[in-house]
Amino acid sequence: MQSDRRENVLRRLSRIEGQVRGLARMVEEDKHCVDIMIQVAAAKSALNKVGLIVMEGHAHGCLAEAIKRGEGNKAVDALMEVIGQYVK
Amino acid sequence: MQSDRRENVLRRLSRIEGQVRGLARMVEEDKHCVDIMIQVAAAKSALNKVGLIVMEGHAHGCLAEAIKRGEGNKAVDALMEVIGQYVK
Amino acid sequence: MQSDRRENVLRRLSRIEGQVRGLARMVEEDKHCVDIMIQVAAAKSALNKVGLIVMEGHAHGCLAEAIKRGEGNKAVDALMEVIGQYVK
Amino acid sequence: MQSDRRENVLRRLSRIEGQVRGLARMVEEDKHCVDIMIQVAAAKSALNKVGLIVMEGHAHGCLAEAIKRGEGNKAVDALMEVIGQYVK
Repeated sequence: MQSDRRENVLRRLSRIEGQVRGLARMVEEDKHCVDIMIQVAAAKSALNKVGLIVMEGHAHGCLAEAIKRGEGNKAVDALMEVIGQYVK
Repeated sequence: MQSDRRENVLRRLSRIEGQVRGLARMVEEDKHCVDIMIQVAAAKSALNKVGLIVMEGHAHGCLAEAIKRGEGNKAVDALMEVIGQYVK
Repeated sequence: MQSDRRENVLRRLSRIEGQVRGLARMVEEDKHCVDIMIQVAAAKSALNKVGLIVMEGHAHGCLAEAIKRGEGNKAVDALMEVIGQYVK
Repeated sequence: MQSDRRENVLRRLSRIEGQVRGLARMVEEDKHCVDIMIQVAAAKSALNKVGLIVMEGHAHGCLAEAIKRGEGNKAVDALMEVIGQYVK
């Protein structure tokens, strides 16, 4: 991963870690379920974004390299298998 | 799209069209909501599969070509934008 | 389902059927994969909306009735099982 | 939330926090993007499960109470709005 992309991803992960800790606090303090569900959805959406940013870096980087080296087929298959875990 | 992939996609789309028509029939015949929701989820999952098959063909074909021609960046950006509509 | 909700759902399903047929046409006419993927995502999102509308009708109707009759637990479990197919 | 459900949710959140920290480590150690994406998908799926468990507790608890008190409509609308954030 390029260093600015890596910084971006690390910053987001650190924020998500905080969101998950905040969720545990909400549960302990017996907050409204609907509010908890909203925050779970927010954390999930933040994780999705991280997945997309990593995927984008991968497509511009490793995948493009593999295709240029003539090893694109295997790399595309590996990527598609992962994407299948995001698209359900 | 390669012709076997195209046939596969067309067969799936024709089946999905039948699923959607079947859904309308279930609604008209006042079937249980839960059963209708299960069938909606099945049609949605079948559409997802079509999206993944088209994506895979694209990645092996046009995307790989674009990368080899040195126009990979634009092609990757276009693909990532689409993937972002599937990953929410 | 109440009759206005039913009409709404049927109208949406008929539109989705058209979208799916349009997708088959796009594939036959060899349109760009990215455009096909965008239309698949649109149809999928329209199906999701149908699922939510049916779910809402169910929650206001059958589910509420079942809870009032003291049979809420079974009805909630059935609903949650279906929701689990939408939330992956 | 009932206490066994709360314990279950807290245990899961603590595990997810660990997963997110593990993700940051993977990024720092420059692990393969595909492996990172797989772990992001796993954390996302674990969060989804938490969302469903909270939703289920809510439906059996607060929602059922609200319906019995005759305030079901508002409670169902609030729940459906949240579910709409999970089903996209």
